[in-house]
Amino acid sequence: MYAIGIDVGGTSIKWGLVSKDGKVLATDFIQSRKDEDQNLVADKLVYKIDEFLKQQGVERKEIIGIGIGSPGTIDSKEGEVIYTNNLDWQHFPLAKILENRLGLTTKITNDANAATLGEVKFGAGKKYKNVIMLTLGTGVGGGIVIDGKLIEGNKGGGAELGHAVINFESDILCTCGRYGCLEVYASATALIRQTKQAMEANRDSKLWDVVDHDITKVNGKTVWDGYDLNDKTAIEVVNNYIHYLGIGILNYCNIFRPEALILSGGIAKQGDRLVNLLTDYCEKNHYGYGGSAPVKILIAELGYESGIIGAASLVL
Amino acid sequence: MYAIGIDVGGTSIKWGLVSKDGKVLATDFIQSRKDEDQNLVADKLVYKIDEFLKQQGVERKEIIGIGIGSPGTIDSKEGEVIYTNNLDWQHFPLAKILENRLGLTTKITNDANAATLGEVKFGAGKKYKNVIMLTLGTGVGGGIVIDGKLIEGNKGGGAELGHAVINFESDILCTCGRYGCLEVYASATALIRQTKQAMEANRDSKLWDVVDHDITKVNGKTVWDGYDLNDKTAIEVVNNYIHYLGIGILNYCNIFRPEALILSGGIAKQGDRLVNLLTDYCEKNHYGYGGSAPVKILIAELGYESGIIGAASLVL
Repeated sequence: MYAIGIDVGGTSIKWGLVSKDGKVLATDFIQSRKDEDQNLVADKLVYKIDEFLKQQGVERKEIIGIGIGSPGTIDSKEGEVIYTNNLDWQHFPLAKILENRLGLTTKITNDANAATLGEVKFGAGKKYKNVIMLTLGTGVGGGIVIDGKLIEGNKGGGAELGHAVINFESDILCTCGRYGCLEVYASATALIRQTKQAMEANRDSKLWDVVDHDITKVNGKTVWDGYDLNDKTAIEVVNNYIHYLGIGILNYCNIFRPEALILSGGIAKQGDRLVNLLTDYCEKNHYGYGGSAPVKILIAELGYESGIIGAASLVL
Repeated sequence: MYAIGIDVGGTSIKWGLVSKDGKVLATDFIQSRKDEDQNLVADKLVYKIDEFLKQQGVERKEIIGIGIGSPGTIDSKEGEVIYTNNLDWQHFPLAKILENRLGLTTKITNDANAATLGEVKFGAGKKYKNVIMLTLGTGVGGGIVIDGKLIEGNKGGGAELGHAVINFESDILCTCGRYGCLEVYASATALIRQTKQAMEANRDSKLWDVVDHDITKVNGKTVWDGYDLNDKTAIEVVNNYIHYLGIGILNYCNIFRPEALILSGGIAKQGDRLVNLLTDYCEKNHYGYGGSAPVKILIAELGYESGIIGAASLVL
């Protein structure tokens, strides 16, 4: 028995045949474009997935179901993408359409939720049933799994873990319209901004060498390279970033007290040293407040297939 | 069929016979003291509850079970109070003891959790299955109900909704050890501090008349009395308080996107006007961010029996 996991992205929609133990056996994709009619996308997907299954020699009865991870606000109960900015879909009942036309049970959730469930079922969180995931990329995404199940909120409007204010005195405007959200301090975008600001203020920093004296080359890795060079400015930027992210993590420890908190996204590529710095921060800052159990901080494991595996995990 | 709800407090342990529809039919209590041996407390409770049932003419087979709401950190799976500061209990398996000695299924949780579940089953939240409660008292307590079930966190260490930092630039130290938690801005204690500070800075405020020019008389209601007198200082204190509490509420909207958020505790006595001010604040500040459903803000309804009803709701 297999599942199909569909990972909707801004430039392509990828899918894979996934085994019951979360292994991706074959994949295919179609291009996605913002200006394409959503019903046409559904038609194309139905046709292409049907072809894919034939090519793979897999019969309908061998498929447990289809899982879809999509950006945007998703009403998983109705099987509908309420709205996604990336693809201009609105009230698009994608899961319902695939279910009816392919004759396969189909579930859909937000891509961050799907990735979280995938990590809990098959990745870094597989020893645990209660896990929070923070995705540190362009923004800060989130996923909540309690007792092995996703917590999505009313009409998929929850788990927006990047959009909690951690500094109401902040003058940094978030994409959500409020000031001082976790996202404006802990995303990769934020770390790049913090790195650039520190470089402007410290002309003698080795960070300038890291980017060949071209500040436009600063990315989410730059400051860590400077950190490796023992550059004072880089160390200060990293320490501040750990403080910001640590505040968010401790908030979610107190709110959920999960068994584990998984980090994914670009910044999570820093792996063990990120985990060590954060664990150290949390231990010094009331991690196990009131005698509560500390929370294991982990790095996501599923890598570039996490979207497909996460989507498939909705039906596995 | 009935349930027994036990409400553990710092000065007394109250219990009640509760009907299946959440009505308290009879109550009794014992004194509680911090210096009393916890095993003696258990003995006393077993004896007194047995007597109580005899007096009420209720047989064991008519009792569905016992629910206990206790302050402190509770391991509900183990039926144990891990630690409570109010009563100096440590690793006290109170639920297990009552279950074994009275022969009745017994469940235990934190008192804030119990009160939340009570409101969802029998009070302000009975139309909903996904509810957050914030208790605005000496501190800020919290409860989380998703799909009709309590989310307690690992070993009961979650739902500490007052202990999320909303202003990391704050110099106000919280009881949890961190600075700038929701609790230091939105508790009754915080509102009293904010009121006093504003009075000190505004000697002509009518708030001075409200307390007969004795600042030690300021309580959580004072500023609302000044607000009724259209006092400029009082209005400013209230508006700031709504801003602080509103930030916390919007954070929990984005994190959980519940159907309803219930307010309880001393400040919630302000009822409709508190709800109206907060709803207005949320509507102006990205309440339904990203097209998400707004969250109904409600006032708790169960009043002084909420502890007993909430505890009973664990088994009802």
